[in-house]
Amino acid sequence: MFRHTDHMQFDIAPENPDPVYARKLQELIGGTFGEMTVTMQYLFQGWNCRMKGKYKDLIMDVATEEIGHVEMIATMVARLLEGAPATESTKNAMGDPVVAAVMGGMDPQQAIVSGGGALLANSNGVPWSGGNIVASGNLLADFRSNVSLESQGRLQTARLFHMTDDPGVKAMLRFNLARDTYHQNLWLAAIEELKADGIEDTIVPNDLFDEEFAEHATSLWHLSDGADADKGRWAHGTAPDGIHQNQFLANPEPLGNVQAGPPPDPKLYATYDGAMGEPRSAAFGTEKGVVGKIKDAVDPTS
Amino acid sequence: MFRHTDHMQFDIAPENPDPVYARKLQELIGGTFGEMTVTMQYLFQGWNCRMKGKYKDLIMDVATEEIGHVEMIATMVARLLEGAPATESTKNAMGDPVVAAVMGGMDPQQAIVSGGGALLANSNGVPWSGGNIVASGNLLADFRSNVSLESQGRLQTARLFHMTDDPGVKAMLRFNLARDTYHQNLWLAAIEELKADGIEDTIVPNDLFDEEFAEHATSLWHLSDGADADKGRWAHGTAPDGIHQNQFLANPEPLGNVQAGPPPDPKLYATYDGAMGEPRSAAFGTEKGVVGKIKDAVDPTS
Amino acid sequence: MFRHTDHMQFDIAPENPDPVYARKLQELIGGTFGEMTVTMQYLFQGWNCRMKGKYKDLIMDVATEEIGHVEMIATMVARLLEGAPATESTKNAMGDPVVAAVMGGMDPQQAIVSGGGALLANSNGVPWSGGNIVASGNLLADFRSNVSLESQGRLQTARLFHMTDDPGVKAMLRFNLARDTYHQNLWLAAIEELKADGIEDTIVPNDLFDEEFAEHATSLWHLSDGADADKGRWAHGTAPDGIHQNQFLANPEPLGNVQAGPPPDPKLYATYDGAMGEPRSAAFGTEKGVVGKIKDAVDPTS
Amino acid sequence: MFRHTDHMQFDIAPENPDPVYARKLQELIGGTFGEMTVTMQYLFQGWNCRMKGKYKDLIMDVATEEIGHVEMIATMVARLLEGAPATESTKNAMGDPVVAAVMGGMDPQQAIVSGGGALLANSNGVPWSGGNIVASGNLLADFRSNVSLESQGRLQTARLFHMTDDPGVKAMLRFNLARDTYHQNLWLAAIEELKADGIEDTIVPNDLFDEEFAEHATSLWHLSDGADADKGRWAHGTAPDGIHQNQFLANPEPLGNVQAGPPPDPKLYATYDGAMGEPRSAAFGTEKGVVGKIKDAVDPTS
Amino acid sequence: MFRHTDHMQFDIAPENPDPVYARKLQELIGGTFGEMTVTMQYLFQGWNCRMKGKYKDLIMDVATEEIGHVEMIATMVARLLEGAPATESTKNAMGDPVVAAVMGGMDPQQAIVSGGGALLANSNGVPWSGGNIVASGNLLADFRSNVSLESQGRLQTARLFHMTDDPGVKAMLRFNLARDTYHQNLWLAAIEELKADGIEDTIVPNDLFDEEFAEHATSLWHLSDGADADKGRWAHGTAPDGIHQNQFLANPEPLGNVQAGPPPDPKLYATYDGAMGEPRSAAFGTEKGVVGKIKDAVDPTS
Amino acid sequence: MFRHTDHMQFDIAPENPDPVYARKLQELIGGTFGEMTVTMQYLFQGWNCRMKGKYKDLIMDVATEEIGHVEMIATMVARLLEGAPATESTKNAMGDPVVAAVMGGMDPQQAIVSGGGALLANSNGVPWSGGNIVASGNLLADFRSNVSLESQGRLQTARLFHMTDDPGVKAMLRFNLARDTYHQNLWLAAIEELKADGIEDTIVPNDLFDEEFAEHATSLWHLSDGADADKGRWAHGTAPDGIHQNQFLANPEPLGNVQAGPPPDPKLYATYDGAMGEPRSAAFGTEKGVVGKIKDAVDPTS
Repeated sequence: MFRHTDHMQFDIAPENPDPVYARKLQELIGGTFGEMTVTMQYLFQGWNCRMKGKYKDLIMDVATEEIGHVEMIATMVARLLEGAPATESTKNAMGDPVVAAVMGGMDPQQAIVSGGGALLANSNGVPWSGGNIVASGNLLADFRSNVSLESQGRLQTARLFHMTDDPGVKAMLRFNLARDTYHQNLWLAAIEELKADGIEDTIVPNDLFDEEFAEHATSLWHLSDGADADKGRWAHGTAPDGIHQNQFLANPEPLGNVQAGPPPDPKLYATYDGAMGEPRSAAFGTEKGVVGKIKDAVDPTS
Repeated sequence: MFRHTDHMQFDIAPENPDPVYARKLQELIGGTFGEMTVTMQYLFQGWNCRMKGKYKDLIMDVATEEIGHVEMIATMVARLLEGAPATESTKNAMGDPVVAAVMGGMDPQQAIVSGGGALLANSNGVPWSGGNIVASGNLLADFRSNVSLESQGRLQTARLFHMTDDPGVKAMLRFNLARDTYHQNLWLAAIEELKADGIEDTIVPNDLFDEEFAEHATSLWHLSDGADADKGRWAHGTAPDGIHQNQFLANPEPLGNVQAGPPPDPKLYATYDGAMGEPRSAAFGTEKGVVGKIKDAVDPTS
Repeated sequence: MFRHTDHMQFDIAPENPDPVYARKLQELIGGTFGEMTVTMQYLFQGWNCRMKGKYKDLIMDVATEEIGHVEMIATMVARLLEGAPATESTKNAMGDPVVAAVMGGMDPQQAIVSGGGALLANSNGVPWSGGNIVASGNLLADFRSNVSLESQGRLQTARLFHMTDDPGVKAMLRFNLARDTYHQNLWLAAIEELKADGIEDTIVPNDLFDEEFAEHATSLWHLSDGADADKGRWAHGTAPDGIHQNQFLANPEPLGNVQAGPPPDPKLYATYDGAMGEPRSAAFGTEKGVVGKIKDAVDPTS
Repeated sequence: MFRHTDHMQFDIAPENPDPVYARKLQELIGGTFGEMTVTMQYLFQGWNCRMKGKYKDLIMDVATEEIGHVEMIATMVARLLEGAPATESTKNAMGDPVVAAVMGGMDPQQAIVSGGGALLANSNGVPWSGGNIVASGNLLADFRSNVSLESQGRLQTARLFHMTDDPGVKAMLRFNLARDTYHQNLWLAAIEELKADGIEDTIVPNDLFDEEFAEHATSLWHLSDGADADKGRWAHGTAPDGIHQNQFLANPEPLGNVQAGPPPDPKLYATYDGAMGEPRSAAFGTEKGVVGKIKDAVDPTS
Repeated sequence: MFRHTDHMQFDIAPENPDPVYARKLQELIGGTFGEMTVTMQYLFQGWNCRMKGKYKDLIMDVATEEIGHVEMIATMVARLLEGAPATESTKNAMGDPVVAAVMGGMDPQQAIVSGGGALLANSNGVPWSGGNIVASGNLLADFRSNVSLESQGRLQTARLFHMTDDPGVKAMLRFNLARDTYHQNLWLAAIEELKADGIEDTIVPNDLFDEEFAEHATSLWHLSDGADADKGRWAHGTAPDGIHQNQFLANPEPLGNVQAGPPPDPKLYATYDGAMGEPRSAAFGTEKGVVGKIKDAVDPTS
Repeated sequence: MFRHTDHMQFDIAPENPDPVYARKLQELIGGTFGEMTVTMQYLFQGWNCRMKGKYKDLIMDVATEEIGHVEMIATMVARLLEGAPATESTKNAMGDPVVAAVMGGMDPQQAIVSGGGALLANSNGVPWSGGNIVASGNLLADFRSNVSLESQGRLQTARLFHMTDDPGVKAMLRFNLARDTYHQNLWLAAIEELKADGIEDTIVPNDLFDEEFAEHATSLWHLSDGADADKGRWAHGTAPDGIHQNQFLANPEPLGNVQAGPPPDPKLYATYDGAMGEPRSAAFGTEKGVVGKIKDAVDPTS
């Protein structure tokens, strides 16, 4: 269960409105790597974590912080939109190219749809999608996703940092940059701890090494003609898991048969000339189910 | 430019059709972490790479391999669908619960839309989205995303490995598992190499440390009541970047002001009682543009 | 079955083209609350209505009108795009900041994709989605959605009314505003009539009051620290349904157990330390199906 | 800023797993009217509310509660998936029609993607979309949407109530039904209070009545041939706003001109025979911008 | 403007309900090639048609018919869902494998969301998208899309025809198959007529032949190693436009330079080693705009 | 399996950057008819082709070429973005209306998300969708889709050709226009060859003519009041299939019964007055399954 205080985690006080920048900030709310994604990704990871204790508690701490980041940036967007020329007619705007340019750079839905507030969408107005989040239950896989997310997040924040010179906006971004620095360190530390605790190792999942074809677990297939692909440690020496020896397959040849589908079901009307013969009769992983046999016995005419 | 050979990278030969499994395999084609995502993510990363040489060549090698993985799994799906009871009527199917169950577990679009072939969609039939890919231009950020992607990919492949006992299908998955093992090692090695080459470091992007608020770059805000959140190295000691000292903020209080939007533009009809006064006049990051001043001079009445 | 006349329901005659406004008007075609949504929402509600008579007839009257509103606004968009600088090169446009600003404010797809016509998308170019419509079969629930839809629709129309000073465009909007006024009244009247007819009451659905936990049907959980949440009639007195007595729960405590998932299936590779023991064996709402028992009897070795 | 306690708002304890029902419950998490929608809709409405005081405080109380509802149902989904036959092969499953039927009714992504946890998607696996939420800034419009949302939400919960006979699941739904009853009453009460406070009235927005064409604000256009469309109070008497007099337009004729687009820009290659003449020259709401005039003066040859 | 009659274009009378088939029929409502797509595609083409007369009139005739097809199939879906075991609990359903299999093959949203009615979604529950329609304004391009649409539509209808043996359902499909036959002929005839009228020719658009590189307008680049790619008339002889001579490029070599992006803007943090030098200074299709020159004159220090 | 060379199929060398045009070019990458769609559509058609030989080989040749077209245009986008004012603050940009206008016309995600590279999205920033592709297995249906796709593709390229005057950009487009000309001819030739080979004919699929209602396979239903709908060959004479005789149904009357759903399941809470009686008992295409009968025998009380 959650509780809320009206005070925001950090101060949000732009010196001046800037509706063009308000559109760009949408990327940090509803973009693929925005605050909405980290919020929901961490919440679902926390709820889906099957071990009680430090990892689950950690995830929930960070997840709860992130809801507050959506709050901060949504508030900043509203303040940046104050006094925006949203309701100017095109004719009026065209009398002043500066106004016209501002209108061209604005998100029209921030006026028409949300009335001067933030949208749950990215900087191109595409709504945030629940498909953005990752919560697989495997903590190593998910923490790697978290590192990736915080990296892209700080990268985008850094880019946005250069797109404003408003001291108030920059102050919020200075806070966000710092949190993203910590969160990158945090998830990297958690990955180290998973290994130190003996819970996970280098490869996700830490299993099936006896099942996979070992001879294909080490080599770079050189399928593009760039001359330097073998110049890195991915092509030579011991792999990061400390076990495999990397190799470079300079002239790889395909190992498989010719690509082809089976003969088609005639009732599906795939164009076909019969050269491959008839499709074999149906088999669904079993020749005939037990119940099918019962059915035959009960009603052999059906 | 690309070239294609009809021979597949690896052999695809299921012993028996299995249309229920054919639906599940869609996850590896068009799911968020499927082959389509790695293909397009690596292609766009390669094309967007701004340094000639080993990193760009590496990315293009792997990207080119991955197109062939889409080919392999799409072919497997078609072969698993051979002889599927797709065109059975419900009445017929209900006469045999096994057939009925198979039909219930199939993806109807694999019959109606693609006529026994693969879709560019996930195991629930949701089309693959271009929004799944990550190609930011920052190689450390992107390689971390690649590690994450290959981790989720091998995890899903491992789960699917247990959902079949067809030796032919398992053989393809044994190959895929091995490639995913290598690809996790590969991107981890590339991350090490970026650091060894002095091109990137631990935090993405490797800049703005003087700008961010350093006091907020080290502490876990304890906002959930789990008792063990401070038991990990994220809360104590030196951070993975070797610089910051992690801390635990056991009783964090909000630093910000009360959340509130500015007074609204009356023409947008936000419900408002006037308590905050009028919205200030428009300002778009500048009091008045140069052109605006010219305009005033030319036509002061407008 | 439908019939069409080439004459539009109302006159569409802008005095001047305005491609910037043409983009904004897309919100009224393909936005969440645009004419496409009301059209398809009312059509599906009408087709899904299970009572013959006045309600079904009413819905179909309004639905049929709304198709014509899509027609009107799509036509307006095309006329506003007449002579738009869509095919100007950037270089040419940059010679005249007014032209440049117009181009910046245009929807590029209105030129590239639809050749000067309307799109079935909103003002940010996001395509309309069939997921926007509501047709549950419960008329009270659906009419409430209709009131909401017409309210947002008139609100957006009012906002757009201030963004133009073209008398022809404004005339169309004056018509639309009036229709939205009537349609709000219409659905509110229909809701009153559902109650007057004794078909529905205040709460949707009008059932299960004996099943729900009555002690949780009346109280506001005060989970945010705003001081005035108990100042409204939602916290005191008789509720709108005339039955329940509203209450304010000033210091709510959670009633539930600690959030946790069950022990995971090992084949799904969720990170797990075994502390919760093994997952219990499968049970799908029944211990063992009848058919399973038959199967055991027929083939106990399987 | 938010805080979290590990205790859930209400107890979640299914007696038995039921993976088929776990799929259906996804509708209450990530469906259009699920807990995710109410959570984000209320959060954005609260953040976008421009009046301090009781309405904003109310919205934030309810929004904060709703995050906890996502938590509850996501936890229930994980518990219902315990021991699910997700990793059975098709062949094994086909040996027991009951197991096969369960597998057919499951969401494959709940196993492959989330490893036995909930998804942020609906019961057909379609991800939740940020486009589902409504936060216009106009409280009457938004509260009407809230009433609609809680009505559809309770309706879906009621339908789901009949689809299980597990006492533990039913207990959670009894709680949810009760909360939805209260929340319908709550938003209906808030609408009454907005009127009682004189802040909003019946029609959204409460303005532009002098601008709209009054003669079109009262009549039902009878465009479908159902005989009973005039039998309701929407066609006669005083409208709910207490002002307008409803009317029935039994034989409506179109008021507009013939539908037609303008002559096309030849560079856009719309098929055209020239019958309408040339498109008029560009005009963007103004004949020529001020800057354009300056430009002419400065460089008349450009 | 539109009018509606309650009578459907054709009779809809299934002999028996079939909820499994009701799900499959969703493909013909909200699938990419379903009735919703033809309806909206033809409506937008008609509204976007710039020539008055036979083509526009034709399109509007067919478009208006298609709205009625959505009506027919939506009604069929509702009738097929009559008495569906939608509200059975899993436990009850598992007692009868036939019921269980039916439930597994149903669309859960047809019960939970639409209460036994049709959805505006495809057979996997993915909502219909406005991005499915094509209305470019070029009639040849659009009529080709229409031929394609009616071809896929009849193909899917034919597949669905074999998936039922209900005489009433088959009767509706016999009607639909016939209409699709006519509509394929119709659009093919309209394409012939466009040529006979001299309005369009073989290539879309019928222009820019002097601008395009003629040497690249005739040859098949042989980039895959299939041996028979040159065995068709696409590789030899005169092309369908009667002008070009087809050729086969057996050993094509790339004509372009090495793929590479420009040196990046440092503020965007793309990983970069400086080897390509600095990015050139900005140029937006013009060296310096007229207004920029004015600005220099007014304020040379800025 | 695929191979890649770093050399592009054709030279990409814009004379000057043009970030406004870089946004428009996104339509040719990730738009519905962009290079991504042709790439994936042809790949999936090729993999889904059930006949070995010339058609399959042809499709794979073209598919492989198209991947290279994505490469070309993605590279062009990056080069056009060189030196873009992406990191300018609004305040700085407002000092120069030309810069401001460029910023307004740019895609903000090309800076914030991809760091100066291309996105896998259209010109409005909407991500490319796997739902765009068509690969039904029926070659006539699919080749018609291909003709349509190449027609829309050349149309959009032609429109974009007029929106630039950069000789380098125009050179690439001259190449693309030529390829699209050839590809239209190519698929038209392939359609002729399918007929010449006797594999397909005019109507898709080439079957079920005895099943469809022949009397509905020939007539245009005149449902819109345009006067000229009967002036084309679609209304008279022999149809393109050489068999049917076209007709014009000037005054069509509906053939069907009144639109209505069945009585609803009371547990779904559709509003209902009982006038149609109770819903009939469930029937799923069969009165009672065989297994159901067994169940009755085993446990008649269940």
